[in-house]
Amino acid sequence: MSVSPVAKTPQGVRSGIPDATVNRLPTYHRSLVSMASRGILLVSSEELADASGVSSAKLRKDLSFLGSYGTRGVGYDVEFLLYQIARALGLTQQWPVVIVGIGNLGHALAGYPGFASRGFKVVGLFDSDDNRVGEQVSVAGLNVVISSIADLPQIVRSSGVSIGVIATPEKSAQEVCDVLVRHGVTSILNFAPVLLEVPAGVDVRRVDLATELQILAFHEQRKSQLAMAESNAG
Amino acid sequence: MSVSPVAKTPQGVRSGIPDATVNRLPTYHRSLVSMASRGILLVSSEELADASGVSSAKLRKDLSFLGSYGTRGVGYDVEFLLYQIARALGLTQQWPVVIVGIGNLGHALAGYPGFASRGFKVVGLFDSDDNRVGEQVSVAGLNVVISSIADLPQIVRSSGVSIGVIATPEKSAQEVCDVLVRHGVTSILNFAPVLLEVPAGVDVRRVDLATELQILAFHEQRKSQLAMAESNAG
Repeated sequence: MSVSPVAKTPQGVRSGIPDATVNRLPTYHRSLVSMASRGILLVSSEELADASGVSSAKLRKDLSFLGSYGTRGVGYDVEFLLYQIARALGLTQQWPVVIVGIGNLGHALAGYPGFASRGFKVVGLFDSDDNRVGEQVSVAGLNVVISSIADLPQIVRSSGVSIGVIATPEKSAQEVCDVLVRHGVTSILNFAPVLLEVPAGVDVRRVDLATELQILAFHEQRKSQLAMAESNAG
Repeated sequence: MSVSPVAKTPQGVRSGIPDATVNRLPTYHRSLVSMASRGILLVSSEELADASGVSSAKLRKDLSFLGSYGTRGVGYDVEFLLYQIARALGLTQQWPVVIVGIGNLGHALAGYPGFASRGFKVVGLFDSDDNRVGEQVSVAGLNVVISSIADLPQIVRSSGVSIGVIATPEKSAQEVCDVLVRHGVTSILNFAPVLLEVPAGVDVRRVDLATELQILAFHEQRKSQLAMAESNAG
């Protein structure tokens, strides 16, 4: 077992498409879905770049890795580009997902409206609290019953689950991770504030909510320093 | 009002420290806190880089922006480096934060254990649902009462809140954002699946939970393609 480096994925290059590009594809995909829903058929690289918050040079470079170059003076075909990105991201297939830890965060994740529309199907909810086992949770309009962690191996195997979401407290996250990995899960989205140790071949992405606030705080601090400097100068 | 580019912050350079470096500082901070708690006094760049999931070259470069170079053959002083990073991130002061939208996600955020320990204090919880207003939520061991959005201006002003968290459904996120900005909030952490429009000078970071799953799905797809190629070759 080795420590899974949090930042390895964003920096590395695997599979011909740089990881940094992969990390931006979902944003392009979302922008294009919104355009398609408004009946837009063609989009220039500038428009799509604007809607996605990147430079148009970066956008063109990213899309070139998919073999998509657009047409000079015309732009990209929205539907075809959507298909290309969805195919690259693996969204043309449905991914069964399990969520472990059904507290407030697990409930929020189970009910997250964006999962189903983007190819993810929550096939199992698990909690170690016996009082919670048996509770019904509405997931994409269907009721899913919270199961005991003892039932996890069977559901992971029968549904071919390869993606697991950990929303447990910090202290149980590694143990839950080990169970998931032992039963064949090879991608883990971790919300617990802990670096998980996983064997080679298992991908972990960590979402740390406090990190995002810290980054905002950094910029807030600079803004207030600037404002103070300006008021002293004035 | 202009569209706030999602990716402007991660790419740009403000305030002398590249934004990409700023985005990694919370990870270094967390690794150092864990080392300090284990009584470690000195750390080599390799050890800290390993624990944080970056290359040691990148770590040294990042820390050089803080004026921190370590000592050859000795490494970095853990406590002093912690102080330098905390100061750069603005964690030496306390940041009052409000959370708007107290469904499952808002509850999870309010109870998130990592906020208080990293300098954030939740001073207000708001919801548009009258049935929820008045409910008590435990935040870092204290009870905070959910307030009506009508009370938001008063609390933002009296507590000097500059950071707001939006955990509302998609359809009300922009309206809530406008209210926050109008009353002086200049940093927004957005969990709603929508690009918020904000005036210049306001920072927005969006956390999109489905994006993280999409990135994992990409790597899963590549892993299964590789496995298939191997089994066909074998």
